Amino acid sequence: MRVVVIGGDAAGGSAASTIKRQLKDAVEVVVLEQQPWTSYSACGIPYWIAGQTDGLDALIARTPEQHRANGLDLHTNVAATAIDPQRRTVSTGEHEYSYDHLVLATGATPVRPPIPGLDLPGIHNIHTLQDGLDSIADLADQRPVRALVVGGGYVGIEMAEACLDRGLNTTLIDMAEEPMTSLDPDMGRLVHEVLVKAGVEVRMRTPLEEFLADGDGRVTAARTGGGEIPTDVVFLGMGVRPRTELALAAGVTPGHTGAIETDLHQRVLGLDGHVWAAGDCVQTYDRVSSTQRYLPLGTHANKQGRILGMNIAGTAARFAGVVGTAITKFMDTEIARTGLGEHEATELGHDVRTATITATTASGYMPQASPITVKLIGEPGGRLLGGQIVGGPGSGKRIDVIATALFAGLSVPDILGLDLAYVPPLSPVWDPVQAAARVLLGRLR
Amino acid sequence: MRVVVIGGDAAGGSAASTIKRQLKDAVEVVVLEQQPWTSYSACGIPYWIAGQTDGLDALIARTPEQHRANGLDLHTNVAATAIDPQRRTVSTGEHEYSYDHLVLATGATPVRPPIPGLDLPGIHNIHTLQDGLDSIADLADQRPVRALVVGGGYVGIEMAEACLDRGLNTTLIDMAEEPMTSLDPDMGRLVHEVLVKAGVEVRMRTPLEEFLADGDGRVTAARTGGGEIPTDVVFLGMGVRPRTELALAAGVTPGHTGAIETDLHQRVLGLDGHVWAAGDCVQTYDRVSSTQRYLPLGTHANKQGRILGMNIAGTAARFAGVVGTAITKFMDTEIARTGLGEHEATELGHDVRTATITATTASGYMPQASPITVKLIGEPGGRLLGGQIVGGPGSGKRIDVIATALFAGLSVPDILGLDLAYVPPLSPVWDPVQAAARVLLGRLR
Repeated sequence: MRVVVIGGDAAGGSAASTIKRQLKDAVEVVVLEQQPWTSYSACGIPYWIAGQTDGLDALIARTPEQHRANGLDLHTNVAATAIDPQRRTVSTGEHEYSYDHLVLATGATPVRPPIPGLDLPGIHNIHTLQDGLDSIADLADQRPVRALVVGGGYVGIEMAEACLDRGLNTTLIDMAEEPMTSLDPDMGRLVHEVLVKAGVEVRMRTPLEEFLADGDGRVTAARTGGGEIPTDVVFLGMGVRPRTELALAAGVTPGHTGAIETDLHQRVLGLDGHVWAAGDCVQTYDRVSSTQRYLPLGTHANKQGRILGMNIAGTAARFAGVVGTAITKFMDTEIARTGLGEHEATELGHDVRTATITATTASGYMPQASPITVKLIGEPGGRLLGGQIVGGPGSGKRIDVIATALFAGLSVPDILGLDLAYVPPLSPVWDPVQAAARVLLGRLR
Repeated sequence: MRVVVIGGDAAGGSAASTIKRQLKDAVEVVVLEQQPWTSYSACGIPYWIAGQTDGLDALIARTPEQHRANGLDLHTNVAATAIDPQRRTVSTGEHEYSYDHLVLATGATPVRPPIPGLDLPGIHNIHTLQDGLDSIADLADQRPVRALVVGGGYVGIEMAEACLDRGLNTTLIDMAEEPMTSLDPDMGRLVHEVLVKAGVEVRMRTPLEEFLADGDGRVTAARTGGGEIPTDVVFLGMGVRPRTELALAAGVTPGHTGAIETDLHQRVLGLDGHVWAAGDCVQTYDRVSSTQRYLPLGTHANKQGRILGMNIAGTAARFAGVVGTAITKFMDTEIARTGLGEHEATELGHDVRTATITATTASGYMPQASPITVKLIGEPGGRLLGGQIVGGPGSGKRIDVIATALFAGLSVPDILGLDLAYVPPLSPVWDPVQAAARVLLGRLR
């Protein structure tokens, strides 16, 4: 049996490794990767640029050599150019590979709106290791003083921290009302305040219109709806879209999010059952809304890759779906969300109630105590719909309790009953998540 | 209606406050508290002795004056001496109170084995605020150089840290094979190593035989099965037993743990339905083993007090039960457990499988990454039975994911599917709990 895997990062690498580990010599696994690198942590790139971690090699979980040593027929710097699902072949232009099973793990690509000057030197995406190399080289060569971060989402927040770490005068712009639009605006407001307090110049509701260049053609400013912002370097964090060109050309109809639609086995819908997909190129089943959503994250890519690989190797497995968990931090502030936001839930027709409490991460009398704000979203009848957290060290991973509760279908009263861990340096006697549930429960009655 | 509450700490204070808040002027709530203090954090006492927090006032969540301002008829320094369930009265010797509902929140008392010299000056329990005051005064007066901690459980570990913080040469003795017997010995071993590394002289499998005194009658040494240990001060952490004297004298038959048995409404079994109990004097329903266990913790006391109060106030509520979660820390090492341990599960007849992994709290390439060991316990068929964690900062509260999963009845494969939060400074892409589930799942198949 031959499996061809297009993409050798999180999803593709996991899928290929799982198949090879299970089937050993009974399978030939060909992996085609466009980049020179495999299985790396894209999420680590901002920390690498910040100088918080050691660099490119540190971010690589498994090198091409390691994959090959594990028996994968892995080709780097090779792009698949066409798929023929009838003939079951993949072409790279130079070569054609026939397959018994094909895995699409083509990932995502940064959103690039039609903004004049977006390609100017000095403007960087934060998506690939090459972006990291380019950014670091540019910072070393140009010794910029001012940085502009476009976008106040996960990458934007993380790059704002990296810019401060680098000693840059940092401006962040976004079109939204508040940063972190995956949170509700009242929680995003807290992130806004922390950014400002740390010295970031934050300009919200500020559409980007054009990038301007100097005589050498390098970016010198952004023209925005709020005036011109001079800068020496620009980092883009405007989100990603699924890379679906190959799939679409092969006859796949994308899902409503524009990403590839699969069943829970990660089999691509609408083809012959021999084509599978996972990671940033697919949409995923959300357990909370029972809808398909596009949530490109490394965690899902790894899980889906593993599930997909098990299925191809003959062990039936289903992806459990997601609940919409995400987290980041900015300096000492941890920011997390899961489930539906207030507006998402309202749009989906829920009769939304919310409770937002401010507590401390540890018992108030301990030196470790740091403020934490928890927002919970539910509806009368007791259903839990989502949660959001902004707070000091020890805050963010508390979202996992809410995520686990959502996964399991626990109710708001259930949250209050949970047997969570308490010791004064690590938690108040009522964990802040439970303190929020207590207030929300009062509003649901 | 009149409610008499015996005990004004976590359970009694919560119960009384809940009843008064709901029924307002329609209820008279009498609270009888033996100590001069109410509603305080006993768990904070080691940190107070250590000098990590400011002292007595900081540990008090609600003072007698605050309770009285909220409408409670609260009496401190008053002990109930007898209950007459037929006549529905409580006596303090001087006064007799009739009640419509009686709440037993009599708490626990330190275990005091028949060891000669246990009452010598210089030997301290760590149970009440008075113990804290006495310990701190003794340390100030005597300026000891050597400390002996008896018991390697939660209080013992926390007092060992306090003694190190105070600059004392610290010895810890315990009869068990390893410290923290609520963990399995292989995990307790990790705690042992951390204690030793921090400079604590740890003597396990060392029975305490006698305390020896100097001419002034103050403790100078402990005679043990492993020889004599000279010391200037002793802190006892040998566990607690429920205070049930009043209940037993009133005709209550204790449960198999020796604690008061209640239904899930916190109503005492075997009486007329007007007597309720909560907190450290009761045994609780364990959702994992479906048995009654004695797990005296502030979290349960607060929850049970609230549930009990709601029931008396006319809002039906049931205590959800516990899953056996507990946590502590020693210096930078966080130690947590939930569910059944390997030996507990085996004794209960489970076909036990375990997996223990060592990972990092953050992505390995981040400076925040600290080692974390996670042990998961399950059985073929996929049932999750328990988990234990020992690791650096950010480790301990990860037990809450396992506790939430146990509460909800999630399986080992479910754990692997959870949508947990990932960002490199706060977690590896596979959270260590999921990494352990992955290994365990392989052993269950």
